[in-house]
Amino acid sequence: MIDLNADLGEGFGRWRLTDDEALLSAVSSANVACGFHAGDPSTMRRVCAGAAERGVAIGAQVSYRDLSGFGRRAMDVPADELADEVAYQIGALRVFAEAAGARVAYVKPHGALYNRTVHDEAQARAVVAGTLLAGGGLPVLGLPGSLLLAAAREAGLPVVAEAFADRAYTPGGTLVPRREPGSVLHDPGAVVARALDIALRKEATAADGTRVAVAARSLCVHGDTPGAAELALRVRRALEEAGVRIGAFA
Amino acid sequence: MIDLNADLGEGFGRWRLTDDEALLSAVSSANVACGFHAGDPSTMRRVCAGAAERGVAIGAQVSYRDLSGFGRRAMDVPADELADEVAYQIGALRVFAEAAGARVAYVKPHGALYNRTVHDEAQARAVVAGTLLAGGGLPVLGLPGSLLLAAAREAGLPVVAEAFADRAYTPGGTLVPRREPGSVLHDPGAVVARALDIALRKEATAADGTRVAVAARSLCVHGDTPGAAELALRVRRALEEAGVRIGAFA
Amino acid sequence: MIDLNADLGEGFGRWRLTDDEALLSAVSSANVACGFHAGDPSTMRRVCAGAAERGVAIGAQVSYRDLSGFGRRAMDVPADELADEVAYQIGALRVFAEAAGARVAYVKPHGALYNRTVHDEAQARAVVAGTLLAGGGLPVLGLPGSLLLAAAREAGLPVVAEAFADRAYTPGGTLVPRREPGSVLHDPGAVVARALDIALRKEATAADGTRVAVAARSLCVHGDTPGAAELALRVRRALEEAGVRIGAFA
Amino acid sequence: MIDLNADLGEGFGRWRLTDDEALLSAVSSANVACGFHAGDPSTMRRVCAGAAERGVAIGAQVSYRDLSGFGRRAMDVPADELADEVAYQIGALRVFAEAAGARVAYVKPHGALYNRTVHDEAQARAVVAGTLLAGGGLPVLGLPGSLLLAAAREAGLPVVAEAFADRAYTPGGTLVPRREPGSVLHDPGAVVARALDIALRKEATAADGTRVAVAARSLCVHGDTPGAAELALRVRRALEEAGVRIGAFA
Repeated sequence: MIDLNADLGEGFGRWRLTDDEALLSAVSSANVACGFHAGDPSTMRRVCAGAAERGVAIGAQVSYRDLSGFGRRAMDVPADELADEVAYQIGALRVFAEAAGARVAYVKPHGALYNRTVHDEAQARAVVAGTLLAGGGLPVLGLPGSLLLAAAREAGLPVVAEAFADRAYTPGGTLVPRREPGSVLHDPGAVVARALDIALRKEATAADGTRVAVAARSLCVHGDTPGAAELALRVRRALEEAGVRIGAFA
Repeated sequence: MIDLNADLGEGFGRWRLTDDEALLSAVSSANVACGFHAGDPSTMRRVCAGAAERGVAIGAQVSYRDLSGFGRRAMDVPADELADEVAYQIGALRVFAEAAGARVAYVKPHGALYNRTVHDEAQARAVVAGTLLAGGGLPVLGLPGSLLLAAAREAGLPVVAEAFADRAYTPGGTLVPRREPGSVLHDPGAVVARALDIALRKEATAADGTRVAVAARSLCVHGDTPGAAELALRVRRALEEAGVRIGAFA
Repeated sequence: MIDLNADLGEGFGRWRLTDDEALLSAVSSANVACGFHAGDPSTMRRVCAGAAERGVAIGAQVSYRDLSGFGRRAMDVPADELADEVAYQIGALRVFAEAAGARVAYVKPHGALYNRTVHDEAQARAVVAGTLLAGGGLPVLGLPGSLLLAAAREAGLPVVAEAFADRAYTPGGTLVPRREPGSVLHDPGAVVARALDIALRKEATAADGTRVAVAARSLCVHGDTPGAAELALRVRRALEEAGVRIGAFA
Repeated sequence: MIDLNADLGEGFGRWRLTDDEALLSAVSSANVACGFHAGDPSTMRRVCAGAAERGVAIGAQVSYRDLSGFGRRAMDVPADELADEVAYQIGALRVFAEAAGARVAYVKPHGALYNRTVHDEAQARAVVAGTLLAGGGLPVLGLPGSLLLAAAREAGLPVVAEAFADRAYTPGGTLVPRREPGSVLHDPGAVVARALDIALRKEATAADGTRVAVAARSLCVHGDTPGAAELALRVRRALEEAGVRIGAFA
């Protein structure tokens, strides 16, 4: 059994990015944008309603306040402000989750905040502080080995490690940085094979051909590229055909 | 017994406007800005903590999304979007109220949204719809006779009418429009006298000298002008000295 | 000879909306979003560079400050602030036009500001005041009979009337409001026929079948809908095949 | 002869921060906020008009796009986007400078962008690229020894070094970091003495008591703290009484 998560609701006003309807048929956990890098209130409501209807878990995809940069630019936000911004976003999303008869079931940072909290202790702790502030003991979804998961664990929050179906791994089991060639798998067949490898064998073939262990309760598929929803569906079907049950961790 | 309400938390980031600490000692209900016309998450947290400490009721001061105009410019926001924006703001504030051991106890629209929902049925209903979406059956604080209170009542929400300590009244008992001369009382003594008149006699002297009935469970004092907090304190003391108990309606 | 204008550069950060490259091959005048309803600086630079390269005239598509509503919600912006906001947008665009060896050649309001300045004298005058503030005596492109064009003419600015290739006309020669059925022509053949009618005969067939006069120096084609760029190209080719020269008015 | 510069126009909409009127009587160069960290269009117009009237030079105080953080949080903005954002801000300010019969005479980065371009080559070059894009060969005002001034010089732009009247210096002649105790001088007498020292002797007493050389064509006084305008005036008078002429470099 594995969880499939993707980013949803990443439009803003007139602009659309993710095919939320199709993605909701593919994933078991929806990381919903909360308005800071994307995600207007009406989109949040619609995505929460759709997720609740299909039994998809709703996660708060918290981000730096950066609409123009889509939350992809690291920012030196002071820890206390960052914690408050995280709590604000969780609270805003919670209204729509609860209105749909569901709840916010976990927290996952977006973009630059995700990357930065892998190694920046102050910001990792701030995201955890914001999650605690929001109450409910929400699980934190993130990269295995990240300071974010360490800080969450230390604070007594459940932590969930995720792997990436479409990213290349180093022989050390970490992700090949995006700026390096071959860091992202574009071939759908390779993405599906990687997903099966991780789900069935808890392993992946690293960029140098060696096999590395990849233990993850959740598998991330990307939602914001053309064909993303279709690929997510293909991954889901391949997993199901291989006997893997798809189910939310939360 | 009467409630004293004022707008709080109307700074944003580096900018401060309301003297939140002093106002919290004067009012029984704090209309807290939720980030759309003012109010960053850290300010919201601080104001909620201070309100909870002093037993001041916390209200969501919901607004149009308009930082540059401070929510003072009417906007033709479609009703469904407006409802979702209202719910979003309530949810965001709720996190900080609940983290402080309190709760969001009511909703009051800010600025242009307050004025527009006096007579615009679609927007009045949208604010009510957003309040319902946010759950909890929150009371709506507003102008007696407004379509907002009518829509809230119709939806089964508690409604609370407010009067203004520093505004001139017409012989018909409505407010003299702000653009007219003499519409705002600037003399502290006159403001205090008006507050006493409303609290003790449920009446006020209109601009033409006639007496008009002013029934209000809550009295609004302004928080965003120089000397506002001091004046609010003076009003409170005068009311208490006259034997009026100050207490939140919610 | 007629001008073809369309809205360009209406993305923001990660979000794209208009197919700017394709539209630049179709139009003679590009209404470039200036950052208030859409249009980040990098997009503005790219669109200006592309326009300059192809000899397409660059216009400032000025708007209310409303990213979340895409400038489609009327706002009660005080006239002096609105004038300053218009000037700000023109100045920002001018940097990129001039860096590309071109210039800002005209001003056209976007969305709700366009619609409101048809009949709201204060806002119409404010747009003109902002245009004057920006200097250079820029022509104003707008709806024939609008208060905007009247105010511009009165201020000594050149005015240019436009017609719409994809909108239904009333027997009185005005546009059928968008909320009415049939107000927008979706059939490409009908749009092309309407464009030819206006360009060749200065007439159009109104919704009730009567013929109405439509005098316009510029023809607007929409850029923000799927297939918009292709349709714009089809209109251009049909006009050229009919012997109509396509050329900017500015 | 020395230039006195300060940050002006740092309000936004309803919020005020700098006492622009008083500061304009004190400085010879006004670093005007351009809307990204502060500075709405109407404030920009007013400040430019006041500066032009008094013969105060107008500089573009360019910033990261960060209203909620007042531009004080370093951001990993890609270089090409940052350059475009800098140009956008210069262009927007230019409209108001030129409408006032003046011109944008120089560029100075604000807050975190100022600090980051001291040592971050990519962002330093980006600010210079944006300045070049805006045309006119604008001088860049900054910290002596910064990569920003180096990049500007290399690009053929005039560079102007500034010193700080209210900051402590290290024995090496650099600024004591703000997070260290005693980094900012709060005593007005000490600030005035420091200003005289720098203007008359091109020296300052470092934190350890040693004397260090401080060569600067411009002296920065802060405008965004209580009493700032009064202190700036005191500095100006003390310099003039000591026979130093105050004059813009641009």
